[in-house]
Amino acid sequence: MGIVRVGFIELWVRDLEASLGFYRGLLGFRLERQEGRSAYLRGYEELEWSLKLTQAPFPAVRTLGFKVDGEEALEALLRWAEEEGLPHREEADWGRPRILRVQDPFGYPLAFYHRAEKLERVLQRYHEHRGPGILRLDHFNVFSPEVGEATRYYRERLGFRLTEYTEDEEGRLWASWLHRKGNVHDIAFTNGEGPRLHHFAYWLPDPMAILRAADILAGAVQTDRIERGPGRHGISNAMFLYLKDPDGHRIELYTSDYLTVDPDHPPLRWSLNDPRRQTLWGHRTPKSWFLEGSPLLSLEDAPLPTRPSPLQGLPEHVI
Amino acid sequence: MGIVRVGFIELWVRDLEASLGFYRGLLGFRLERQEGRSAYLRGYEELEWSLKLTQAPFPAVRTLGFKVDGEEALEALLRWAEEEGLPHREEADWGRPRILRVQDPFGYPLAFYHRAEKLERVLQRYHEHRGPGILRLDHFNVFSPEVGEATRYYRERLGFRLTEYTEDEEGRLWASWLHRKGNVHDIAFTNGEGPRLHHFAYWLPDPMAILRAADILAGAVQTDRIERGPGRHGISNAMFLYLKDPDGHRIELYTSDYLTVDPDHPPLRWSLNDPRRQTLWGHRTPKSWFLEGSPLLSLEDAPLPTRPSPLQGLPEHVI
Amino acid sequence: MGIVRVGFIELWVRDLEASLGFYRGLLGFRLERQEGRSAYLRGYEELEWSLKLTQAPFPAVRTLGFKVDGEEALEALLRWAEEEGLPHREEADWGRPRILRVQDPFGYPLAFYHRAEKLERVLQRYHEHRGPGILRLDHFNVFSPEVGEATRYYRERLGFRLTEYTEDEEGRLWASWLHRKGNVHDIAFTNGEGPRLHHFAYWLPDPMAILRAADILAGAVQTDRIERGPGRHGISNAMFLYLKDPDGHRIELYTSDYLTVDPDHPPLRWSLNDPRRQTLWGHRTPKSWFLEGSPLLSLEDAPLPTRPSPLQGLPEHVI
Amino acid sequence: MGIVRVGFIELWVRDLEASLGFYRGLLGFRLERQEGRSAYLRGYEELEWSLKLTQAPFPAVRTLGFKVDGEEALEALLRWAEEEGLPHREEADWGRPRILRVQDPFGYPLAFYHRAEKLERVLQRYHEHRGPGILRLDHFNVFSPEVGEATRYYRERLGFRLTEYTEDEEGRLWASWLHRKGNVHDIAFTNGEGPRLHHFAYWLPDPMAILRAADILAGAVQTDRIERGPGRHGISNAMFLYLKDPDGHRIELYTSDYLTVDPDHPPLRWSLNDPRRQTLWGHRTPKSWFLEGSPLLSLEDAPLPTRPSPLQGLPEHVI
Repeated sequence: MGIVRVGFIELWVRDLEASLGFYRGLLGFRLERQEGRSAYLRGYEELEWSLKLTQAPFPAVRTLGFKVDGEEALEALLRWAEEEGLPHREEADWGRPRILRVQDPFGYPLAFYHRAEKLERVLQRYHEHRGPGILRLDHFNVFSPEVGEATRYYRERLGFRLTEYTEDEEGRLWASWLHRKGNVHDIAFTNGEGPRLHHFAYWLPDPMAILRAADILAGAVQTDRIERGPGRHGISNAMFLYLKDPDGHRIELYTSDYLTVDPDHPPLRWSLNDPRRQTLWGHRTPKSWFLEGSPLLSLEDAPLPTRPSPLQGLPEHVI
Repeated sequence: MGIVRVGFIELWVRDLEASLGFYRGLLGFRLERQEGRSAYLRGYEELEWSLKLTQAPFPAVRTLGFKVDGEEALEALLRWAEEEGLPHREEADWGRPRILRVQDPFGYPLAFYHRAEKLERVLQRYHEHRGPGILRLDHFNVFSPEVGEATRYYRERLGFRLTEYTEDEEGRLWASWLHRKGNVHDIAFTNGEGPRLHHFAYWLPDPMAILRAADILAGAVQTDRIERGPGRHGISNAMFLYLKDPDGHRIELYTSDYLTVDPDHPPLRWSLNDPRRQTLWGHRTPKSWFLEGSPLLSLEDAPLPTRPSPLQGLPEHVI
Repeated sequence: MGIVRVGFIELWVRDLEASLGFYRGLLGFRLERQEGRSAYLRGYEELEWSLKLTQAPFPAVRTLGFKVDGEEALEALLRWAEEEGLPHREEADWGRPRILRVQDPFGYPLAFYHRAEKLERVLQRYHEHRGPGILRLDHFNVFSPEVGEATRYYRERLGFRLTEYTEDEEGRLWASWLHRKGNVHDIAFTNGEGPRLHHFAYWLPDPMAILRAADILAGAVQTDRIERGPGRHGISNAMFLYLKDPDGHRIELYTSDYLTVDPDHPPLRWSLNDPRRQTLWGHRTPKSWFLEGSPLLSLEDAPLPTRPSPLQGLPEHVI
Repeated sequence: MGIVRVGFIELWVRDLEASLGFYRGLLGFRLERQEGRSAYLRGYEELEWSLKLTQAPFPAVRTLGFKVDGEEALEALLRWAEEEGLPHREEADWGRPRILRVQDPFGYPLAFYHRAEKLERVLQRYHEHRGPGILRLDHFNVFSPEVGEATRYYRERLGFRLTEYTEDEEGRLWASWLHRKGNVHDIAFTNGEGPRLHHFAYWLPDPMAILRAADILAGAVQTDRIERGPGRHGISNAMFLYLKDPDGHRIELYTSDYLTVDPDHPPLRWSLNDPRRQTLWGHRTPKSWFLEGSPLLSLEDAPLPTRPSPLQGLPEHVI
């Protein structure tokens, strides 16, 4: 299908200034444009904006955007939507003349685009970097009540590749990590009430930057925004920090996973109750991390209903 | 009294090989001598051994050693012990011809020494460094049922300087940090059943080394030895990782506190229930951290009886 | 052509034990097999060996290996070799049943393979990691007297993508960086007498690891092996350290470049005399770095003759 | 004499705004007060200002300030000045009611103070930190044509302790490092035309911060301000970066030396031509580093004449 990587996310937020205070003021995202009720931001490595915040009556996720490798890919995706009878529409946004929005069979509000106006390169303008040094959007993680089916579909129909997965003793899939761009994931499915967004993640330059992010939140006396971490995941081997933004959207700061470009890269299996799975160092995970997520919007900007998962229960290693 | 800094600790361990597997094998301590039932270790910056492990029937702390600035200081400390009627004796150990052991009025088995055979400098033999890069002994932290009195005594009689302290709303002292060498502490008193050792701490070169230590423990599938951290303390500003050794002795890996040499350095007050006190990032502290400690030995190598503290209750921010 | 990434390099060395002392003993490469005159090593992230050292009468590079995405790719490469009349042959090596060796039109002794026996995952066995923590082979950099033509050929015939390049004021190409795997390069061409290898590079986890590598070399009193760095390249934005092995082969320790998976990723142009190009911090580059390289072997294991480049002269910013 | 540590430096600069652009804008120093022609700055760990910049007709160093442990120390220093017939005077400055200025026998314009108004603690206000995270003034390094005599005098009369020194084969002292506060130095003497200031140094939190400083200078396209580094000194084991400010004053960013509080700490001898002395990694040192320095002022604010050193010649390891 020509999907290259995660491309952008659009969040509905209730107070744009408060959100900018968080994303720009504390995390140092670069604000590239603010117009009407929307703001467009990016990390320091990105040449395209990747985070759109839109003031709205309630918090939600409007789109999960993916970059594709050309206009032909958009045509193929359009045919897929039509053939599958999936809700879809095209729209344009700042610097992106054609965005194909498709609600996938599981309800996720995907968006695909190829052409994007390139912004000025600021990676090496280090004197302008602020905060922990956010570099680029890395992945989405979504709650799903049907991880097994979603994983199969994304592999078979959308060309994603499996890198890691969590199974219980009966062989049921509780979580999966799927990539296109060559690291551990562009999207992950996590068992739970869904469809909802679990979190979106940005890549940071190194583990020290993760620690710096925690220090910055603490300095600003906003430790209540720190939900989990800093720590190192067993899964993905990445250093992480999970934050809740002023609307409760969860953002992960993430770094140091590994290369997965080989087509014969063997997926890594984790047992559900392996204590090193969630955090390599054995830390327990707060219950909120398994339960809370962001609502998604339909293509008509209505909140999507969610369904509980048939797989109930939390891993043992929870606070 | 001429106390310069913490100097060494002698631990009783039940299985010397198991302990060496932990301290030398995983943490990379340098083993300088093993003789009979005892092993002498040091960090890469130290010119004197600082950790003595002795195989014994039960786990305990035999001595909390301090380096003093000359023989006159030893004489002054001897007079102090005699005048106060404190149990004391002199002994020699490897490369240390004169160690004055004194059981202080609170029961802590202190040891003072000045002369010590210097070991070869290995700080810059980086190709030989192993583990996270343990540099030097930094401090002791002891449980005390009388933090207020102990703090006053150590300041007034032994010349320690207060850098930080924790108070409740009634002005009662729950913990104090006292130094001689110019950083946050050489010794800290923590409210609780005592006298016992809460932990001893070694200095690491930087926060990345703290993370590396956690990775090493995880790699060896010994995450159960990780009690708390990695994190940053509000108190002391230090990055930390607390580990339990095979006998349950708690060792802190510690770095990045601050300079306190000014005689007019103002002690920093923390409120007992400030969530940033224990961990700047707001992490809760496991209950074990408030309750578990190592027994101390009398000068006759008998376990010291402990007393409960009149100050009962845990901070709110506990798991 | 289905090339996925750089895969391995085979070096001829004069003293295998000395080379293992360097790669394994100091840099901490994992030795997976030693048989006869050859040793097979890898970084901690790799599931396939990537460095083969073979004792030989003189130092040389026998193969520059690339992983391809399947057997069909090998067939396509075989047809390419036949159609172009390029010397080629197939061979097998440890755990790799089919390696297609082709001497490309410029003389480079390429090797292509798909199937490879997977080695045990050791990325998270951190307690076994030694040295600075070598993770994976990242790229080759080769001297070429015809950078412009080689770049064009590798883009058009082998499917490489250009990410950065150095041009003089007349628009002549002095160097180019080309990738397949999604970061700055799998192969780079540098103006100079060629064909020769300029260096091969391994990825390290973070900039601290680069510093640690320098410390380790210094600790072992082998600073003469440090040719250049640590520093940050303007080109690629990577932190680097260049070392010379006991045979003079140049290895780069490399980290922190950026993602280049977008098909519309715009190549970045550098001016030949921009002082930030070679080192972002303005450091000068030693002359040896522009002049010295490793000889390559023909498919018959004979040293390849080299040709001088028509582009003469060094950048201004040279020591 | 009760000297505790280096306390502050006052620099004459030709363009205060340009200097603030460098110290505050790029390096992130905290500006605490700007009044008339002077600005007062500090690092994030400091409770007292430590850098005073004063607009003046030419660049110079007005005072090298030391904190002392009480008013008695000031009296003792006053007696010393009187007995030795040294030029001296008292003055006050912002928040410092009594500063005793003394021109020592070698010409250095020292200043001593005890009382200082404490500024607000900002160490943990990480969200406000800018630049690489300057923490505290660490030391002065001065050129001297009589290193041997100056070293002896500072040890015997002012109570400094020697930690490291450079000697040639005839036993002549080329450089010395002397401390009061417990790390490698508060002041160092370097052979050369003097008295002049070679550099002053600020402590950074860790080696990553040193790299960040270099990145920031590069980002601002001010690589010409980077004179030397980043690197690790053999001497002191510290990571360093030397910068030239807009007036040519040299500032070192410095971290990771070691503890020297033991009175029996053995001074470390370096041979003049040991290549690891200047930079552990073997880097050569630019000639400017040995030749250029800042003029000092007399107590009447007149430039001090300098004398050449009888020890001529540069170490071999110079660019």
